[in-house]
Amino acid sequence: MYRDIMCGRISSSNEGKKINLAGWVSKRRDHGQLIFIDLRDKSGIMQIVFNPEVSQSTHNKSKELRSEWVISVSGTVKRRIEGAENPDIETGNYELIVDSMEILSKSKTPPFEISDTNEVSEEIRLKYRFLDLRRDSMQKKMSLRHKVTKFIWENLSLKGFTHIETPILIKSTPEGARDYVVPSRIKNGSFYALPQSPQQMKQMLMVSGCDRYFQIARCFRDEDLRSDRQPEHTQLDLEMSFVHQEDVMEAVESLYIDLIKDVDNKIVVDSVFEKLSYAESMDRFGTDKPDLRFEMELKNLTDIAKNINSNVITNSLASGGVLKGFVAKNSNGYGRKDFDRLTEIVKTQGAGGLIYISLAENIDGPINLEDSSGPLNKFYTQENLNDILLKTNAKSGDVIFMIIGEDKIVNSSLSFLRNHIAEEKNIIDKNIMKFVWITDFPLFEKDAENNWQAAHHVFSSPKSDDIEYLEKDPGQVKADLFDLVCNGVELGSGSIRIHERKLQEKVFDVIGYSKEEVNSLFGHLLDAFEYGVPPHGGMGLGLDRLVAMLSREESIREVIAFPKTQTASDLLFGSPDFISTDQLEELSINIIEEEE
Amino acid sequence: MYRDIMCGRISSSNEGKKINLAGWVSKRRDHGQLIFIDLRDKSGIMQIVFNPEVSQSTHNKSKELRSEWVISVSGTVKRRIEGAENPDIETGNYELIVDSMEILSKSKTPPFEISDTNEVSEEIRLKYRFLDLRRDSMQKKMSLRHKVTKFIWENLSLKGFTHIETPILIKSTPEGARDYVVPSRIKNGSFYALPQSPQQMKQMLMVSGCDRYFQIARCFRDEDLRSDRQPEHTQLDLEMSFVHQEDVMEAVESLYIDLIKDVDNKIVVDSVFEKLSYAESMDRFGTDKPDLRFEMELKNLTDIAKNINSNVITNSLASGGVLKGFVAKNSNGYGRKDFDRLTEIVKTQGAGGLIYISLAENIDGPINLEDSSGPLNKFYTQENLNDILLKTNAKSGDVIFMIIGEDKIVNSSLSFLRNHIAEEKNIIDKNIMKFVWITDFPLFEKDAENNWQAAHHVFSSPKSDDIEYLEKDPGQVKADLFDLVCNGVELGSGSIRIHERKLQEKVFDVIGYSKEEVNSLFGHLLDAFEYGVPPHGGMGLGLDRLVAMLSREESIREVIAFPKTQTASDLLFGSPDFISTDQLEELSINIIEEEE
Repeated sequence: MYRDIMCGRISSSNEGKKINLAGWVSKRRDHGQLIFIDLRDKSGIMQIVFNPEVSQSTHNKSKELRSEWVISVSGTVKRRIEGAENPDIETGNYELIVDSMEILSKSKTPPFEISDTNEVSEEIRLKYRFLDLRRDSMQKKMSLRHKVTKFIWENLSLKGFTHIETPILIKSTPEGARDYVVPSRIKNGSFYALPQSPQQMKQMLMVSGCDRYFQIARCFRDEDLRSDRQPEHTQLDLEMSFVHQEDVMEAVESLYIDLIKDVDNKIVVDSVFEKLSYAESMDRFGTDKPDLRFEMELKNLTDIAKNINSNVITNSLASGGVLKGFVAKNSNGYGRKDFDRLTEIVKTQGAGGLIYISLAENIDGPINLEDSSGPLNKFYTQENLNDILLKTNAKSGDVIFMIIGEDKIVNSSLSFLRNHIAEEKNIIDKNIMKFVWITDFPLFEKDAENNWQAAHHVFSSPKSDDIEYLEKDPGQVKADLFDLVCNGVELGSGSIRIHERKLQEKVFDVIGYSKEEVNSLFGHLLDAFEYGVPPHGGMGLGLDRLVAMLSREESIREVIAFPKTQTASDLLFGSPDFISTDQLEELSINIIEEEE
Repeated sequence: MYRDIMCGRISSSNEGKKINLAGWVSKRRDHGQLIFIDLRDKSGIMQIVFNPEVSQSTHNKSKELRSEWVISVSGTVKRRIEGAENPDIETGNYELIVDSMEILSKSKTPPFEISDTNEVSEEIRLKYRFLDLRRDSMQKKMSLRHKVTKFIWENLSLKGFTHIETPILIKSTPEGARDYVVPSRIKNGSFYALPQSPQQMKQMLMVSGCDRYFQIARCFRDEDLRSDRQPEHTQLDLEMSFVHQEDVMEAVESLYIDLIKDVDNKIVVDSVFEKLSYAESMDRFGTDKPDLRFEMELKNLTDIAKNINSNVITNSLASGGVLKGFVAKNSNGYGRKDFDRLTEIVKTQGAGGLIYISLAENIDGPINLEDSSGPLNKFYTQENLNDILLKTNAKSGDVIFMIIGEDKIVNSSLSFLRNHIAEEKNIIDKNIMKFVWITDFPLFEKDAENNWQAAHHVFSSPKSDDIEYLEKDPGQVKADLFDLVCNGVELGSGSIRIHERKLQEKVFDVIGYSKEEVNSLFGHLLDAFEYGVPPHGGMGLGLDRLVAMLSREESIREVIAFPKTQTASDLLFGSPDFISTDQLEELSINIIEEEE
């Protein structure tokens, strides 16, 4: 080994001892005769000192050293002189007096300094990921990811789960997104697909009697990339036999609570997760991914709206519109410009406009019409205002934000606005992870062509009371489906699965699969269902997202060693790339050149 | 939950209690009034009893039950009556007196009984893998794999390794085998490749300062499948910075010793692994994968051969041949038919023939010419025989097997024969895992076209003393390369890597890569080497093979939940398969139809 101990591990026990260290030259200071270098490795930093009185030749050599050179040194650990300690680093009381050095590798001047205080564009960071990863914050995120995964292994093992690896080269069975495919060299014209999730395989494992399965599973989706998707992501995938919905939720809930306590005890997390039905969540927050770290619940004001004498309102209500709104506390500081800005924001979500009532500050007692201002001002009466105040519980100094229109648009626009305002008013405690289970999802939803599609996926079991509606009113059917949401972000989705061939076929019927399609895409699973299948259910949970959240990072790219860009390319290794014509020939495929 | 406890967990503490169980109907016996069923789940078997006096209706329903139906039952745990205990199962002292039952899933008659005593063809087993996996032995193998992987996580974490996930969608960089490729929909005509191993990525992690990396990594090779290869396999991949060869070996050796003790303390394993240089291993065992559970070392008898007056021998030696042989102890029972059979066996390995000397039994004192028999008999003298006996240490009752010819063929044929005889004479203790490190491999070897190729891979570092031979005599260059071999099987391969751009370029030169090829295939790594790279090295170790060995199984298919056949197809899920023309179009690829 080129070292006896890592740089960041030097402590009093090493004092006076001769040791070897190795690492990167991080910083260099020339103090007249003495040359000081911060030597960095994964564990931290140790100050090393080149003194010509200790070794003239080594001191001479040390003058060559530049940032990011890799060296190994031998020397004696000394306590720093009083006043020279550095309390910012673990080893700040010590320095190594170097007597010999080997230069292991030189470095060109890096395109950016290896430091956490340095702002570098993401493109440069990804292109030079090998330098970016040297930063302490990136190493910490990699370590955190390791810790999280290790904790999952331990916790689920204790709960009787078995980690089982399922294949990456599988059969193409479109599950919502596009499959990545892999041409087979052996079977002309045929392809493997990369799994979007191990869904069918884990269900097959339940038919196989595996009882409790989990996997840290790589999943692949060839999507038109949204801002924070990756062509490949990692999922904590799990499945359980002989369970009801509550059993799956309990297994995951206790895992996440214990996990967070283990990896970061500064994070505040409930000891019991909240539960909201899909309908209630939509009603109170306008979304099935509510951020519950703050209030600002939506209130339905449609009944009050009926009494307001405004053409806009009357017309909207007549065509089935609703009026909903929420209160932003102590927001009297919002001025005309802010309201215009916020109006533009809700318009991006499809809303026609934003109605607001701003209530004057410092009013004791009842709020009168003239204490309120806003675009609706001239249309509502004192009685209307009283109704609104009563329903929303708005007080002096608050602003009531309201949107009228189609239910769906009102919900999504208000939900967006609610998050935006909480963010810009800085009322969110970043140390809280506020989990909520969203349950009782509808099994189906209409797609753009007005056909029924599975709201989550085709294997979810309808609630037993709703099976009767499967044929006559699919929209009515709720499922044993549940999402885990944290701070407004979906962390995972689960369900109890259908375990009867006939019921599964009925669901395929509603979606409009032909018998041939069913047979080709799902036949293997349906056939297996004929040999004794336990009731089962499970979840798929995004691991990248969880680690990003624990790292207080917005983007999952921050917690992936070598992520891809939004155009699905790797700026460091240069994938995807062209392959040789020999390779193409062996695979019996031709490229159709794009037209200019 | 459909149960309170698993079937195999019933013990005295449950006696007299009312509980729920769920599982598969394993066996059913009708004893007049009483119906006995072995109820099976992952944990084991529990006998449940249907008694009409407890519940007539449940007893009636139980008559329907058939093998592999899934049920949940409620009842009371009773101690079995004396004489009715079953010592073969953990719960054999108890039975559950059922008072109610729910049928959760029915089953068709399975194509084979779910039992470990049942011999079923592998094709049927793979097609019905969901039934095959229900067998106790298969569940045990899945659990063992889990335990092994978990232990690796724990052990390497303690040693300061960080598990880092590297991408599956990478750039094609042929590394010995063919790449599987994935067409990109976004960049016309370009492809991702699936990694044959994370080699370049883990080296990049070392450049990134990650110091100690490991990954349970899926690797992909589009090979013409040999009997026990899979298109995808799992590798314990690891890499360390600031290390020499011994440091890597020590990390892996201590991991494997502790791992084996943890998962199966019946296995005998050395506390220090043996080490053999490549040259010594070839010399003494004819292979770089020697099985050291038994002796039968090869002896070089070429010098003795020179004195034997036989044309065959003289001619062979004249053209550079060697004579090597080994002793099979107490093998006098081998008759003419056996020798013919063994001759055929060595011929499959390229040998021209097999020479043997069979020594008569029960001879005290010197062995005379007439006590020996074999094809060479009339050619050698007593002095020749004495020389052979002295060199091989053969005794009365032994057989000396010898092969003459080209060094390479002699070695591979004798090595093959050595393993074969040990196997057929049943002298191998199956509870031993005998590890050996093979070191000092040559860096290059000639390929079929007589060009130099990297013996293992292109990134391995030449031994510093041998760098001078790189240009003038590449065959002379040994590398810091090492294999871990166990019981005659290679379990992993490692090396210290080159960490200097110039040296790496020299190696590429020897192999004959053009500057353009180097730049396109390895440019990203070489560029990274210019920014300060630590000396580093690591290993890739087959996880499937390790678990198979720990399971005393020959085939890695036994320890993979859903393996593929030798034609790389999945008999259960049906991959690879054709994909839709829409999918092909989106990917801008055409199939070149095979000609009939």
